[in-house]
Amino acid sequence: MVEVGLEEASYPIIIEASSLSSTGEVIRKRIGRKRGVVITDETVDELYGSDLDDSLRNEGMKIDKLVVEPGEGSKSLDVAGRLYQELAELNLHRDSVVLAFGGGVVGDLAGFVGSTFLRGLPVIQVPTTLLAQVDSSVGGKTAINLARGKNLVGTFHQPEIVLIDPVVLETLSSADVRSGLGEVLKYGLIWDENFFWKTVESLELFEEVGDPEELEASVSRCCEIKAEVVGRDELDKGLRQILNFGHTIGHGIEAGSGYGELKHGEAVIWGMIGELWISLNRGYLTDETFDQILGALTRLSLPALPDDLTNARLLEYIHRDKKVRDGVINCVLIKEPGEDIDLERVGDTELKGAWEFLRSLEVSQG
Amino acid sequence: MVEVGLEEASYPIIIEASSLSSTGEVIRKRIGRKRGVVITDETVDELYGSDLDDSLRNEGMKIDKLVVEPGEGSKSLDVAGRLYQELAELNLHRDSVVLAFGGGVVGDLAGFVGSTFLRGLPVIQVPTTLLAQVDSSVGGKTAINLARGKNLVGTFHQPEIVLIDPVVLETLSSADVRSGLGEVLKYGLIWDENFFWKTVESLELFEEVGDPEELEASVSRCCEIKAEVVGRDELDKGLRQILNFGHTIGHGIEAGSGYGELKHGEAVIWGMIGELWISLNRGYLTDETFDQILGALTRLSLPALPDDLTNARLLEYIHRDKKVRDGVINCVLIKEPGEDIDLERVGDTELKGAWEFLRSLEVSQG
Repeated sequence: MVEVGLEEASYPIIIEASSLSSTGEVIRKRIGRKRGVVITDETVDELYGSDLDDSLRNEGMKIDKLVVEPGEGSKSLDVAGRLYQELAELNLHRDSVVLAFGGGVVGDLAGFVGSTFLRGLPVIQVPTTLLAQVDSSVGGKTAINLARGKNLVGTFHQPEIVLIDPVVLETLSSADVRSGLGEVLKYGLIWDENFFWKTVESLELFEEVGDPEELEASVSRCCEIKAEVVGRDELDKGLRQILNFGHTIGHGIEAGSGYGELKHGEAVIWGMIGELWISLNRGYLTDETFDQILGALTRLSLPALPDDLTNARLLEYIHRDKKVRDGVINCVLIKEPGEDIDLERVGDTELKGAWEFLRSLEVSQG
Repeated sequence: MVEVGLEEASYPIIIEASSLSSTGEVIRKRIGRKRGVVITDETVDELYGSDLDDSLRNEGMKIDKLVVEPGEGSKSLDVAGRLYQELAELNLHRDSVVLAFGGGVVGDLAGFVGSTFLRGLPVIQVPTTLLAQVDSSVGGKTAINLARGKNLVGTFHQPEIVLIDPVVLETLSSADVRSGLGEVLKYGLIWDENFFWKTVESLELFEEVGDPEELEASVSRCCEIKAEVVGRDELDKGLRQILNFGHTIGHGIEAGSGYGELKHGEAVIWGMIGELWISLNRGYLTDETFDQILGALTRLSLPALPDDLTNARLLEYIHRDKKVRDGVINCVLIKEPGEDIDLERVGDTELKGAWEFLRSLEVSQG
């Protein structure tokens, strides 16, 4: 178990193989609510819905279920509005819990709806993808997308509990595993270099998800790091921004791909390479360190960058990001992996250089 | 000036005649932001929009304005969605402020949108109705309505500053003044009996709003009380619930009227009378005290209760309210005005008695 220390808002992250079937028991023991609603998507519901239902019903909970379509399209105000109506019709009150059961999309959407319905219901995150387990389910950021960009609307609303069962990762696609691995490797680079190299050594294990119980230690380490960072900076005003390593360029690439072609974590891997290149270019990293990390990251079979994404359009997307202040673009730059990390202002020329490097890499790989 | 004490989230309520024209200066001095957006409605914009614009432009702020239609209908997810799109198109970033310039509807709506856009921009409340000045602009509750009920979606998001100019009350309709007075009298009954009687003595002054500068002391006292209560219980888990005096029955009446016929504060006055009747019925209040207060409250020319609202439908609305937990209806009951107040469970029979009393009162008044 990992504790996210936020004084009154502290909560546990419970990571345990096959724990899905004890969800009801955990809720009864820890928060004692009898009434709730599960928000999930069709894919997760088909695979694991009945396991969760059984676990909750066994504890005598009265649970309703709201199912959305899988995919980024569900993180919209329209879908949020439909969920609000359904929650209102179910006559949920403040004594009800919301279980967010799914990947990052469901976690962000259900977290947002739960955090705003009746000015905030208790939310329990039950993440089912590697990305959600190591990243989006922890830390209380919720979000929906607007036509103009991703995650432009959202709240900070810490969950009551995060319940992680690594066994459910078995059914992930390799793209989903790779997407999660992007964030796993990110934690290593910003916080724990040994963990980075250990993860790299077992990349094959991850990509196949042969024995998901072995993932438990990795998922735990990521949650520990995220809990530590969030505990020190809940509202993203300082330290927490190091979690955005790879995300300045990564978000730009994701937006440029129209969301969908590349998974979030895959775009982040491209973004990390680009931002490492800026560190190299500034002389913050030696060629040797850069090449070692690059070699490790490119062992993942990354999908191609969006064909029609020009440098100009990438810059446009980067400038539109919500992290921009007063027109200034900041990047998390690594000087010493796992040790010396800074948020620094970067210029358009450097970003262009990074983008050209990524394109050249693609050519040499292809 | 009144301070709302919430540690890091503390903020000032600045109450000053003709202060509207110094809004820009206050923002520059206190929070130093240069970029922002005013969210207002057509009525307020027409009356006072240019005064506010001038004040902000004089300080070199870059301000855009988003104008919604007046009335409860604007507190919807659709209007919130339109505002989100417009904010995104304006390329607002986290360094921008949102000014909520209007009555309760604008304050709740702009507060909600501001609290969720980019996971929360700083919000400045510039309330222009008596109700908003003494109640809804202070305390950080934001809300929008769903088809199933009022304020079912919202957040807690404290403003950076509340800027109150009592001079703008001059242009209020008498219904709007009465609506605000409902809340003013509520503060007296739950916190400060002298203030209640002082307000009652000058009811005519209020109803005419002859000299709005004289209202300053009243508005200040209400803000002091609200600040004290919110400072002790920001998230509405205990003490803050006394602010719901009159609101259990009042919200039911408001819902039963379809919103619009009765103003919020007018429904609250009816609700206070009903809830005082429950206190009388339980022997918490003497006949004498009850009659005195009733005499004072009925000096306001209250609009009729909704014709077609039966007791059964009222109960249905009351049971649907978001304050209900486990099917239990609570009311704020007054034992000693301004002194001894409790949130207690009430039964449907008592609520029926209260409703019959309100109907009888209407007959005797009519």
